[in-house]
Amino acid sequence: MACEFLSENARSSFVDSVDTFLIDCDGARSRFINVLCILHLGVLWHGNDLIDGANRTIQSLRSLGKRLFFVTNNSTKSRLQYSQKFDRLGMKATPEEVISTAYASAQYLKGKVPSKGKVYLIGSTGLIKELDEAGISYIGTGPDPVSGDGYRLDEWAKCPLDPEVKCVLVGFDEHFSFIKMLKAASYLRNPDCIFIGTNEDSQLPLKNNQITIPGTGCMVSAVAMASNREPIYVGKPHQPMFEILKQRHEIDPDRTCMIGDTVSTDIAFGKNNGLKTLLVMTGSTDKAHLEMMKTSKEDGIIRPDYYLDSITQLA
Amino acid sequence: MACEFLSENARSSFVDSVDTFLIDCDGARSRFINVLCILHLGVLWHGNDLIDGANRTIQSLRSLGKRLFFVTNNSTKSRLQYSQKFDRLGMKATPEEVISTAYASAQYLKGKVPSKGKVYLIGSTGLIKELDEAGISYIGTGPDPVSGDGYRLDEWAKCPLDPEVKCVLVGFDEHFSFIKMLKAASYLRNPDCIFIGTNEDSQLPLKNNQITIPGTGCMVSAVAMASNREPIYVGKPHQPMFEILKQRHEIDPDRTCMIGDTVSTDIAFGKNNGLKTLLVMTGSTDKAHLEMMKTSKEDGIIRPDYYLDSITQLA
Repeated sequence: MACEFLSENARSSFVDSVDTFLIDCDGARSRFINVLCILHLGVLWHGNDLIDGANRTIQSLRSLGKRLFFVTNNSTKSRLQYSQKFDRLGMKATPEEVISTAYASAQYLKGKVPSKGKVYLIGSTGLIKELDEAGISYIGTGPDPVSGDGYRLDEWAKCPLDPEVKCVLVGFDEHFSFIKMLKAASYLRNPDCIFIGTNEDSQLPLKNNQITIPGTGCMVSAVAMASNREPIYVGKPHQPMFEILKQRHEIDPDRTCMIGDTVSTDIAFGKNNGLKTLLVMTGSTDKAHLEMMKTSKEDGIIRPDYYLDSITQLA
Repeated sequence: MACEFLSENARSSFVDSVDTFLIDCDGARSRFINVLCILHLGVLWHGNDLIDGANRTIQSLRSLGKRLFFVTNNSTKSRLQYSQKFDRLGMKATPEEVISTAYASAQYLKGKVPSKGKVYLIGSTGLIKELDEAGISYIGTGPDPVSGDGYRLDEWAKCPLDPEVKCVLVGFDEHFSFIKMLKAASYLRNPDCIFIGTNEDSQLPLKNNQITIPGTGCMVSAVAMASNREPIYVGKPHQPMFEILKQRHEIDPDRTCMIGDTVSTDIAFGKNNGLKTLLVMTGSTDKAHLEMMKTSKEDGIIRPDYYLDSITQLA
């Protein structure tokens, strides 16, 4: 029993078997899926376009008394900012219902970064706000371009470092640059310096067939290669995101379902944590990939328990 | 017979057996070598410090009628600029004796990029000069920062692209940025767009135990991940660099020796092209790595034919 279409007859008993739904919001493409996605959406929305009927489904799950968490790898918004985005789209979600990599990274670091220690942060607003809220000091945000042109090895070798930095945290940063890589890799020479990546996604989701927007994974990998260190990834499909969720809220994996559009992040996250998994086809997974999951006999292929064309079919 | 110290007695017959020496200049660290190098030099120099006696060795090889080529993965200088660097250090090398990744990349692209086509270049002076000399048009050099702060997916989606770009060439670029990654990955959506990386080195060689300087490999890998494409690498240890050398100059691999300080680039380059190989211990290879190569029985370990403490012992 894997990768079955969740038939109309089976839906209500499936929903009955779940107390908590973890729901991805927008999609993301992963380097490990070799498919061409010309146009793709997410689970609930893409950019500022809500998926028709998604709101009704969310309301319906709430009216059935289900607990909902919105679980996203996007590190550029804080939980509050996400909650405001739900508002703007005419949906409701409290900040407590949002589990983003920005929040999870800050929570993960609480107690791990010494009180006088600082984080060298490659990241943007979401991480800034969540680190502020967790009371963790950081440096490094905003533009940090190289000064001058050319191969100035001697000048770069004198780059000042802050001895209080005890962690390098890499999330999505539109100001990602050579100098940021240099500083991150230099801090990571200290083997006691913690190395955290928010997530591995290689591309941001985009309904556009001209432009590819590099995801956080490209930035984390570049720092990993420069420093010859392996990061701890916080986001889906990795464990820390679920550990944070479990610590804050009582979660029974057997009665929890992860709903997502991306197999390598959402469905793998569910599998890694013993959850039920439901794939929706409104996002990054195409029909060829679905067909492969349904028919292939190979071991090691990640498959959801069930799939639906869209979350709107659920309730 | 592998990884033997080239004893004093054996040196003159070894030199007799070689017509052409390919010599690395400065060192570079590779991600695949898990050693801590606190201080390391190169083969002939590091930065602006010539290795004592290196000049005498070069002169001595010349006086024996040996043909010399200086083979470097550094893409930031043109052949002419390299030749001027030799001058400044009191050594002699004509531009024709220098085979750099900047030169090799431009030569590799000659005839592959259509006459009205352009290269999207992530790189600096060396590549600019060599592309100019080869008559290949390019765009993209210099700073290209993101405008404004925050997650502006809709704005990035409108990033203008030049339809004449037929190749993405990534070398060392101190202005490497998120926007450059975005443009490169977007051009690479076209499967006919050629993707070239000058080299894979993960760190630049630096005599410093505080700062790590990311190498070109970090930039190429980030673009590869964002675009889900594999680049053709020009530099050592890959073939194109040697193909260029062979096309321009008559080379008999049996009577050619690659001298370098880095096993994963220099020695692998020699092995991949059927050359004799000589490792010098003035650079990125430490004693533990040497010992491992001498004693390990494992298959697949790259080992030089011979090693010396320094190139100055050769002649």
